[in-house]
Amino acid sequence: MRLKNDLLIRAAKGEETERTPVWLMRQAGRMLPEYRSIRSKLSGFKELVKTPELAAEVTLQPVNLLGVDAAIIFSDILVIPEAMGLNYEMVEKNGPYFPKTLKSEADIKSLHKVEGVELNYVYEAIRLVKKELNDRAPLIGFAGAPWTILCYMIEGGGSKTFSNARKFLIQEPKLAHTVLNMITESTIKYLHHQVLSGVDLIQIFDSWAGILPLDQYKKFSMSYIEKISKSIVEVPVTVFAKGAYFALKEMNNLPCSTIGLDWNMNINEARTLLKSKTLQGNLDPSVLYGDQKSIELETKKMLKQFKGHPHIANLGHGVYPDTNPDHVKMFIEAVKAFSA
Amino acid sequence: MRLKNDLLIRAAKGEETERTPVWLMRQAGRMLPEYRSIRSKLSGFKELVKTPELAAEVTLQPVNLLGVDAAIIFSDILVIPEAMGLNYEMVEKNGPYFPKTLKSEADIKSLHKVEGVELNYVYEAIRLVKKELNDRAPLIGFAGAPWTILCYMIEGGGSKTFSNARKFLIQEPKLAHTVLNMITESTIKYLHHQVLSGVDLIQIFDSWAGILPLDQYKKFSMSYIEKISKSIVEVPVTVFAKGAYFALKEMNNLPCSTIGLDWNMNINEARTLLKSKTLQGNLDPSVLYGDQKSIELETKKMLKQFKGHPHIANLGHGVYPDTNPDHVKMFIEAVKAFSA
Repeated sequence: MRLKNDLLIRAAKGEETERTPVWLMRQAGRMLPEYRSIRSKLSGFKELVKTPELAAEVTLQPVNLLGVDAAIIFSDILVIPEAMGLNYEMVEKNGPYFPKTLKSEADIKSLHKVEGVELNYVYEAIRLVKKELNDRAPLIGFAGAPWTILCYMIEGGGSKTFSNARKFLIQEPKLAHTVLNMITESTIKYLHHQVLSGVDLIQIFDSWAGILPLDQYKKFSMSYIEKISKSIVEVPVTVFAKGAYFALKEMNNLPCSTIGLDWNMNINEARTLLKSKTLQGNLDPSVLYGDQKSIELETKKMLKQFKGHPHIANLGHGVYPDTNPDHVKMFIEAVKAFSA
Repeated sequence: MRLKNDLLIRAAKGEETERTPVWLMRQAGRMLPEYRSIRSKLSGFKELVKTPELAAEVTLQPVNLLGVDAAIIFSDILVIPEAMGLNYEMVEKNGPYFPKTLKSEADIKSLHKVEGVELNYVYEAIRLVKKELNDRAPLIGFAGAPWTILCYMIEGGGSKTFSNARKFLIQEPKLAHTVLNMITESTIKYLHHQVLSGVDLIQIFDSWAGILPLDQYKKFSMSYIEKISKSIVEVPVTVFAKGAYFALKEMNNLPCSTIGLDWNMNINEARTLLKSKTLQGNLDPSVLYGDQKSIELETKKMLKQFKGHPHIANLGHGVYPDTNPDHVKMFIEAVKAFSA
């Protein structure tokens, strides 16, 4: 069945579209007062993630309130390590942390592969969103790249240097591959269920791509992203590897349709290196702190640089939580107006 | 007077050297038990920075214990904002934070330019080190790039997104330039005193270069680095802008002799783009978590890639505090053996 608004899917497949589709990473989240209102009544972030009706509601907010061309299911990349046996907590404004981290082989042996059913609450939210969307826009499903998930499992949260995760790769490469394989197989099953539940596109987030040198990145991250991408044949796949400018050339060989660019990746270079891919991005999220004139100017400038290449407009990273939603709308309207 | 070991200075000037000089960022610090022993007897990091005899002692440790080809004065880039009126605290393992940050124009008006004398304790440490070194190795002085300093002053510490600092550039560009100018003028005076006190080379650290898009980076960071570099005529200047791969081409025009590369910058590309510069770096610091064989292999591989281009061997970032000093020695010895 043809979606009423399938711009995103057609752009992802490299087809020409009437105008450039637009959505924002983290569009369902703290930036919206309507999100904060729901969130404030709950025990925490995880209650929202685990209650399908509420997750569905906040997923739909940006479609209804902002007019984006896609919804992205409200969830977190850390549901995978949690389902594998490593519990995470979310601290408001500070981000996630794991009370227990991977330190030894015994810790790794206590993990188990995810069969998929453990994450039923996500699929239920997907089904609710699909029903409510009624094809007004496609729904994006997602997962973290195994390397990024491994970083969280070892570091227990964000880190300035990720030196524990990096030490693990150097000193325990076999164990690292064991865990990465487990995460990969779990993610494949998880994403398969997401597709069965109705998502129209999958995005893989490799948030910590930028901390590895190219050789290691290929071995410990890209090879697993490749496996995951290859396993998804029903819908297009987008890979967003933040900071991996050094691997853009290699990404052209990934079995995915779209590559996300962050805001300091060079668009011309990406167009040349990623000839066979749709490109997604890459407005600097801080541009939305500016006034209407500068938002329109910068959006135009970006659209012009992508012109003639299959493109999905987005920011180069998640929208900052203190962004004015009216400014987000200015960006969305600017894409719609100037790309038509 | 000719230094007994002036490899670093000659390499910085682009001259051919008998072998590649080598030092490490953060070589004087927690990685060394001899450092931790001194540090453990004190009230905190700042007592060490502000006591010239002790700062001098830890500055000399890596020269005496590890055999590096340069000392770098033990201090912190945040002595500048402190001297300007914004006090910082150092929390062990967590890094620095500012109890009070720049929030309003009034906060900025309460700052004052540094004349230089406020930081006498640094110059005194420099003089003590120079005396003790007796030209066995050159001494590196340093300062933070104004943009990096401004980030700390606004964010109050590290940050995942630096969205406050980035918002400031967008919403208050004039105020941003006012503070950046104050930091620049203060830094020029500070570095001038460092040179008068005896440092043989100056390094400018732009730790948060990687979070700006190129246009903003040129306007809010490179222009100030340029002013500072231009003001130093007595000794060579090195600029290390972490994550600024997108600005490598532009850096060839900076009035400095050496550009530092981080570990995921492509060496071949840097050689091409930075034809007129000595290059410094860029072994992945996590390589030192490996065994002797892999340290030697990776060091050889790096040296080979720089061969024929003026080069100062270093890591691509500061040495991680939990690195085994014996492994640091393996790296140093490998550079000495394989570059001769």
